[in-house]
Amino acid sequence: MDAQPGRSVTSKVLALLDAFTPASPALTLSELARRAELPLPTASRRVAELVAWGALERGDDGRYRIGLRLWEVGSLAPRGLGLRELALPTMEDLYEVTHENVQLAVRQDAELVFIERIAGRHAVPVLTRVGGRFALHATGVGLVLLAYAPAEVHEQVLAAPLERYTPLTVTDPGRLRRTLAEVRRTGYAVSDRQVTMDALSVAAPICGPEGAVVAAISLVVAQHRADPVALAPLVQAAGRTISRSLGTSYGSRRSPG
Amino acid sequence: MDAQPGRSVTSKVLALLDAFTPASPALTLSELARRAELPLPTASRRVAELVAWGALERGDDGRYRIGLRLWEVGSLAPRGLGLRELALPTMEDLYEVTHENVQLAVRQDAELVFIERIAGRHAVPVLTRVGGRFALHATGVGLVLLAYAPAEVHEQVLAAPLERYTPLTVTDPGRLRRTLAEVRRTGYAVSDRQVTMDALSVAAPICGPEGAVVAAISLVVAQHRADPVALAPLVQAAGRTISRSLGTSYGSRRSPG
Repeated sequence: MDAQPGRSVTSKVLALLDAFTPASPALTLSELARRAELPLPTASRRVAELVAWGALERGDDGRYRIGLRLWEVGSLAPRGLGLRELALPTMEDLYEVTHENVQLAVRQDAELVFIERIAGRHAVPVLTRVGGRFALHATGVGLVLLAYAPAEVHEQVLAAPLERYTPLTVTDPGRLRRTLAEVRRTGYAVSDRQVTMDALSVAAPICGPEGAVVAAISLVVAQHRADPVALAPLVQAAGRTISRSLGTSYGSRRSPG
Repeated sequence: MDAQPGRSVTSKVLALLDAFTPASPALTLSELARRAELPLPTASRRVAELVAWGALERGDDGRYRIGLRLWEVGSLAPRGLGLRELALPTMEDLYEVTHENVQLAVRQDAELVFIERIAGRHAVPVLTRVGGRFALHATGVGLVLLAYAPAEVHEQVLAAPLERYTPLTVTDPGRLRRTLAEVRRTGYAVSDRQVTMDALSVAAPICGPEGAVVAAISLVVAQHRADPVALAPLVQAAGRTISRSLGTSYGSRRSPG
């Protein structure tokens, strides 16, 4: 039975989409109904409508997956593919001159979402997945996004337990606060073995046309060959180049339509 | 007023998403209501729910755009980002050895959708946009996807007027039918100045684990320096490499979850 009978139909439809995660991208109808907390007949009816529109696709194995039509509509998100298209040439330049991993991320609530990554074949392995989420307090891009986030996001992150990924992850709220102040002072962030013990990342902000930080770009390099002070200007320059193209593009989006 | 009062709430929610297109990625509430054919109060209520979930985002300019959360969910589509992640290393190899444009596309109904492209900086300019659609009968990837499509898609495409992009676009249904038979015989497609007068593309199929064609890959090169016979084995080999990784990956997705 519907666990929340007062829910709107819209929220039920969105709950069906919420059921899909990177760890479970293919679900049976009964798994979908259970995860969305819907009675099976209700789930069945809504799922049929989502399949007809293309938001879901049913495979030969009887499982449902996110459909191409939803990916198409999602590709119109300015903070997703839109940002990626604008940032990609600069990310490629950064890759060409370093042959290291280049990452692009935005903040969603109190987490970050990876929008793009260029993975160097001979660079240090990184675990990020495009479309995947991660905590803000450990990575270079996360520290940048957190440093420039509104105060309520700071309070939310600092009030919750800070997960420890390595012995070097900053998990003390007071120390994290000082780190964030340092990021705002210098204009870049360094995460030195705070996510994995072999990697160091240097990240810089990307600003929208109003000057607010809307994304972050980073280089992730093998810790033993890293020189953060040398890498910082490179990453900061890339952040500025992307900020400039964002200004132009967002401006043109404002034109009457 | 609602132009179709019998519509389900699900279809109204989906109509709001349908309102966004590459040409109009930012819409006011009244534009949204008009495009979705909903009364303003209904549209306002549904839009508020979509914003709360993150499917839409409201900008400082008061316009609504597709939100990052929808991009995140869309990134779980196996035929979108999933396919792209599996195909990208092979596409990069193809780019490295040719420095030409590399494209990846899938069929959605009677059109194609571009999933990824690597654009050579000094290569012939191409107009494709990731997430964008195009007709099936003109491009190399389109001819491959059409050649291996079910009979009803053939009939649908051949019954409609075939748009002419250049004097060389095949617009005669009988000739297109013979071209498609040739694609199936040789295992690759050539589009010679059928989209723009300066470009030629060579495309090959990508097969899923059951052997059905699920996508197509192409090289798009300047027509004057193109040798389709030399390029075909290169593109076909890339298609086979991606097919093989799809087999492995789709197989693992079938495991109980």
